[in-house]
Amino acid sequence: MSEEAADPTADVPDDAAAEIADAVRRALAKHGYAGLTTKKVAAESEKSEAFFFYHCDSKHDLILVFLDYASEWSLGRLEAVTDIADPVEKLYVACEALLGDPDDEFSRGMNVAVMELLAHAPHDTAFHDRLEAYERRVLADLASVLEDGIDAGVFRAVDPEATAAFLLMVADGTAGAVHALGMDDVEAGVRDRLFDYLETSVLAEGVTPPEGR
Amino acid sequence: MSEEAADPTADVPDDAAAEIADAVRRALAKHGYAGLTTKKVAAESEKSEAFFFYHCDSKHDLILVFLDYASEWSLGRLEAVTDIADPVEKLYVACEALLGDPDDEFSRGMNVAVMELLAHAPHDTAFHDRLEAYERRVLADLASVLEDGIDAGVFRAVDPEATAAFLLMVADGTAGAVHALGMDDVEAGVRDRLFDYLETSVLAEGVTPPEGR
Repeated sequence: MSEEAADPTADVPDDAAAEIADAVRRALAKHGYAGLTTKKVAAESEKSEAFFFYHCDSKHDLILVFLDYASEWSLGRLEAVTDIADPVEKLYVACEALLGDPDDEFSRGMNVAVMELLAHAPHDTAFHDRLEAYERRVLADLASVLEDGIDAGVFRAVDPEATAAFLLMVADGTAGAVHALGMDDVEAGVRDRLFDYLETSVLAEGVTPPEGR
Repeated sequence: MSEEAADPTADVPDDAAAEIADAVRRALAKHGYAGLTTKKVAAESEKSEAFFFYHCDSKHDLILVFLDYASEWSLGRLEAVTDIADPVEKLYVACEALLGDPDDEFSRGMNVAVMELLAHAPHDTAFHDRLEAYERRVLADLASVLEDGIDAGVFRAVDPEATAAFLLMVADGTAGAVHALGMDDVEAGVRDRLFDYLETSVLAEGVTPPEGR
């Protein structure tokens, strides 16, 4: 009970949270966190400013709602791969999901917004805790994809946690040069080397990448 | 002439720029970009607020001075490796420099500040251009370290640009989970896998990492 009371966004109903998160996402993409106001968030929605004030006391709370939504979106991308039976295919699809698509406005906006909020984590415990929980969850999901392939004998006996951390850092790193700055040549180079890394350092000898790689 | 006039920071003398950049760095580490004001920047310096207003018309210009300084600092770290004759040692020292030291307040602050400003690049052409120039310079320096080793026969015939992009994304990615969130286990995993990558995919067969790796 006391824990719920400490979370200012716990009482926001799911449909309102989705509406709020979507408006914050658009406003962040246009103005960044520094330029964000409840008025600008409301301008990205068909709801009134009063709707936003009713559910969230502050810009800070709006961002917390957005962070929960961003985590769910990002984790949803990884969960989508759980239905894939082949560990090799699963790993490649998971890495594609983490890299995101800089030509897709939604994907680019989410990646840049999460990067911006990461920079605020040292100043804000609530941001910090949500973002660390998010990164830990992604790492765990990715490590489990790696474990599946090791158990099936199609991956080398790599350290799943360390390898997941390495792959996630490559993907997180693209938020700057690729998603925020639009450096297409960097994106091409990183994909090239990342998939080469999977082939030479993760796949077991004799195992080939999914078709088309 | 017209180009200089277009750069609002071109006329700031070097010693004033160093004073400004250092105060901006401290203020960014404490308050983030969103919370930055000229008053807060001045509070991090022995100079008066008037000093800052004399040299910079706006918070935006203060940040431009800081970005120039951050680029020089970061490039300086890579330039320090040019005196190292052995390409293998040079590559390892360059990667260490790019990863930074999350236990060092200065290094952590710079990494997080650059990440935050990267998130603002889509909203600000001046930030964008400076940050892209900075990333391109780091990539070129790193590619040249790789070329030296290939020419000397101690590295495999890797694609220097793509490999530099891959290594830089790993390092840039640590700004979030490692520098901003302080996830020590992620840092350990990434270092482990990165140096393993250098050994298995960059060093030529029979070439060993520097002692102590």
